Amino acid sequence: ATKKLASFESLPNREHHEDFIKKCAEILIREAVFEGTNRKNRVLQWNSPEELQKLMDFTLRTSPSSHDELLDLLRNTVNYSVKTGHPYFVNQLFSSLDPYGLVGQWATDALNPSVYTYEVSPVFTLMEEVVLREMRTIVGFEGGRGDGIFCPGGSIANGYAISCARHKFQPEIKATASVTNLLKNIANIILLLLQTKGLHSLPRLVLFTSEDAHYSIKKLSSFLGIGTDNVYLIRTDDRGRMDPSHLIQEIERALAEGGAPFMVSATAGTTVIGAFDPIDQIADICEKYNLWLHVDAAWGGGALMSSKHRSLLKGIERADSVTWNPHKLLTAPQQCSTLLLRHEGLLSETHSTHAAYLFQKDKFYDTKFDTGTKKFNGDKHIQCGRRADVLKFWFMWKAKGTLGFEKHINKVFDNAKFFADSIRNRVGFEMLIDQPECTNVCFWYIPESLRNAKQDSDYKERLHKVAPKIKERMMKEGSMMVTYQAQKSHPNFFRIVFQSSGLDRADMLHLIEEFERLGRDL
Amino acid sequence: ATKKLASFESLPNREHHEDFIKKCAEILIREAVFEGTNRKNRVLQWNSPEELQKLMDFTLRTSPSSHDELLDLLRNTVNYSVKTGHPYFVNQLFSSLDPYGLVGQWATDALNPSVYTYEVSPVFTLMEEVVLREMRTIVGFEGGRGDGIFCPGGSIANGYAISCARHKFQPEIKATASVTNLLKNIANIILLLLQTKGLHSLPRLVLFTSEDAHYSIKKLSSFLGIGTDNVYLIRTDDRGRMDPSHLIQEIERALAEGGAPFMVSATAGTTVIGAFDPIDQIADICEKYNLWLHVDAAWGGGALMSSKHRSLLKGIERADSVTWNPHKLLTAPQQCSTLLLRHEGLLSETHSTHAAYLFQKDKFYDTKFDTGTKKFNGDKHIQCGRRADVLKFWFMWKAKGTLGFEKHINKVFDNAKFFADSIRNRVGFEMLIDQPECTNVCFWYIPESLRNAKQDSDYKERLHKVAPKIKERMMKEGSMMVTYQAQKSHPNFFRIVFQSSGLDRADMLHLIEEFERLGRDL
Ligand SMILES: Cc1ncc(COP(=O)(O)O)c(C=O)c1O
Ligand SMILES: Cc1ncc(COP(=O)(O)O)c(C=O)c1O
Repeated sequence: ATKKLASFESLPNREHHEDFIKKCAEILIREAVFEGTNRKNRVLQWNSPEELQKLMDFTLRTSPSSHDELLDLLRNTVNYSVKTGHPYFVNQLFSSLDPYGLVGQWATDALNPSVYTYEVSPVFTLMEEVVLREMRTIVGFEGGRGDGIFCPGGSIANGYAISCARHKFQPEIKATASVTNLLKNIANIILLLLQTKGLHSLPRLVLFTSEDAHYSIKKLSSFLGIGTDNVYLIRTDDRGRMDPSHLIQEIERALAEGGAPFMVSATAGTTVIGAFDPIDQIADICEKYNLWLHVDAAWGGGALMSSKHRSLLKGIERADSVTWNPHKLLTAPQQCSTLLLRHEGLLSETHSTHAAYLFQKDKFYDTKFDTGTKKFNGDKHIQCGRRADVLKFWFMWKAKGTLGFEKHINKVFDNAKFFADSIRNRVGFEMLIDQPECTNVCFWYIPESLRNAKQDSDYKERLHKVAPKIKERMMKEGSMMVTYQAQKSHPNFFRIVFQSSGLDRADMLHLIEEFERLGRDL
Repeated sequence: ATKKLASFESLPNREHHEDFIKKCAEILIREAVFEGTNRKNRVLQWNSPEELQKLMDFTLRTSPSSHDELLDLLRNTVNYSVKTGHPYFVNQLFSSLDPYGLVGQWATDALNPSVYTYEVSPVFTLMEEVVLREMRTIVGFEGGRGDGIFCPGGSIANGYAISCARHKFQPEIKATASVTNLLKNIANIILLLLQTKGLHSLPRLVLFTSEDAHYSIKKLSSFLGIGTDNVYLIRTDDRGRMDPSHLIQEIERALAEGGAPFMVSATAGTTVIGAFDPIDQIADICEKYNLWLHVDAAWGGGALMSSKHRSLLKGIERADSVTWNPHKLLTAPQQCSTLLLRHEGLLSETHSTHAAYLFQKDKFYDTKFDTGTKKFNGDKHIQCGRRADVLKFWFMWKAKGTLGFEKHINKVFDNAKFFADSIRNRVGFEMLIDQPECTNVCFWYIPESLRNAKQDSDYKERLHKVAPKIKERMMKEGSMMVTYQAQKSHPNFFRIVFQSSGLDRADMLHLIEEFERLGRDL
């Protein structure tokens, strides 16, 4: 330990920092990595915002701190954080603290790269090529061809997909914007009034996704200037899957209204229910109406790694674009998200601005590696600086092999099935969907007091209050974390969700019993 | 060392992983952190893409690797990567490997959070509040009030700014999109034809930025559906600053054309030259025409931390929004970017979709902390999962204090001034801009063979080839990294850029002599 003050210089100095950095790494390895993922310890130590502000000094000051004070702050940060790698953090579409992924992250940080060009990021540029090609191959794009990018999250990946689809439909949009061209507007209106031309020439872009799709589709449509009203939501069936006949109806309706359908976003693994839209049927419809098919497999994409489960995504190889987040089902550390495209060059065509200061043409090496595509020697991102999110995933892949990922997927699907099988007929549990497709299991826990009250007029209202109450208890005890929500006319239900292959059947039973313990007396 | 194979489970296991993780941390601390930033070592070990593919095995396989193999891969990753923390990596608008920032990153990774809500990220939610408020205070927003978000890069921060400005100008755009409302179009056109109404009702949004602004303004305008043609580029003066009189002319032109000006993006620290646009004058113009004033201080924002240099950004407190990247001038590890707004609630109003599964209304704690604004209990991001980019910066701030950041800024500005002063009249050097405002110094190195050839008709052409040649040599030797580019009619010039306060005047002289050594004989 040392009382020495932190230095202001931004360069590590062996004498001043070596001991400090090593101590910090030790604290992290011991307290966050191993203690934080130990079943014997709590998932979190709950404090209200007001309490936490008293327990930990968040304020920023004028003067520096000592290394001792910093070590304390680091311990507190770990201590009061939710342990998302804990086996009983089954609350989100991410969890785990993959040991190889963690090493990959730490290496990324120690190298602090920005993946612009081969020159600045030789290793990561090549890694991205290899990983994206392999992912395209697994998706089923012929010969792994196409294009792809790492994105800061699946939401932005979906945004890229919409942007590419729009560009393909209406390339002039890049320069002139949606319908800003006055002459074009007038012409369109006249054409509409005269009923002389197919309504496709009209500029109101319409895209289709299911009512259970992730909210990023709406969000990014709004951000991209398409407008949420122009996202038509397609009905889902009783297992949460897009209804293809309703999709056709809605496309026809959009056409009849003078809209310009350009894209369908199917979901492979919906956020709440874990449903897989019928991609093959949707692809047929897209072919017929000449629409861009995007598959948002942010969540379910990992299932492609398993020969046992990949049929859930049957037809994905027909997609124009695919969002796939290795940070979800494959447990790469956050963030690790990809957009994969069947089309070469379109990403650059849509997004490049050819910044001279990064993409010089007179470099002394083959600059095809600066971009990932041979045709467009330009940039394809909307980002400029960009983290090397590839390394952690590449390192995990090297560690486990494709086979390791397959085992991982099979295990988490098996756990989820075991969990569902165990509660399906268990007293006090009721499933939202009897046969979950993915590793999300949605259910109600019904306390004894409500078990014979189904006929009561206030049953739903009372049941609605159970999940928040159990959630409060689990948070305050720190014994597990599982999220709940209402959906459609359903009262609050739990959605437990599994990504960690470090869990086993005993854990499933433990979690079930935990619900009983926490909720029985309500 | 161990021959044991990597496990497929995504949970760290003490017996299997402790030794491995510790070894990896040791390698990183020794080889990346200390050796990688040691002046005695090279900035990079250059290999062409073809060579590198032979030296390092990038391919992904079916079967797992042993821990020994993984340690080798880790060493190779470090070995063949560019050391962006090396004192002589002066190539980009980021550099350094700040020791406290690194610890913050490693802690973030070990906790692997996603900043959705207080519940899942208690510590980071509060940290974001504190840091963003303090940054707004430093910008000069009254009482630190307003709003803000961490973004995956300054480009996306600029995109948020455009999105908010557009929403404020045209709130209906969120749902209905730019000009998709047919009736509104017809009405507008009729109004235009009848000349009865101010042209503001027309939908062609126009925004203004300087010709030296970062390309993300164009890029995101295109992404947002505004179109690059509607980004009007304002002339810069001979020091790279936006010309306010030309701005007025262009606003008037846009109005005369029937466009709808809605926003000016001023730059505080341009990417290549490091120029600061005259914010106060631009703010006056924005007030007059009722335009949103955005200040892209991604690069120059750090100067606000120094009482000596903050006058460069005079007037920034009048901005509606500010992009400020602590990962640039303040050397936070990548990425650490913020958008700060004077307006409360607008970010949520613009971007929320109220996802029920994240933002339940029946939580047992005060959910105002889930959002950062009291008015809108919704989400304000276009991202869903989001890295806790705040921790590293907060930790650095705690370590150094505001005073430490001030010293840091003063030192890098002093270094840049010393560098400029040293080459200004030195034989063989010629400055692009005599008095750089920021820490970018742009210059030509003129080899002996060209020193008396200024009058020759092919002088520019020959000079244009010098920088790429010197760059090739420095890369192959690995002795330093400095970028070059052409701009406007100027032949290729170097832009050296300083962020690391670990450098001193001796380093400046060393870098100058390095140019002479590498270029003299050309
Ligand atoms: C189906 C689906 N798509 C997209 C996303 C967004 O991914 P991210 O959180 O990486 O932005 C999610 C996130 O949960 C999702 O469930
Ligand atoms: C002035 C300016 N604005 C914005 C950006 C974009 O920042 P980022 O690389 O974080 O996307 C840059 C990047 O260099 C910049 O120089």
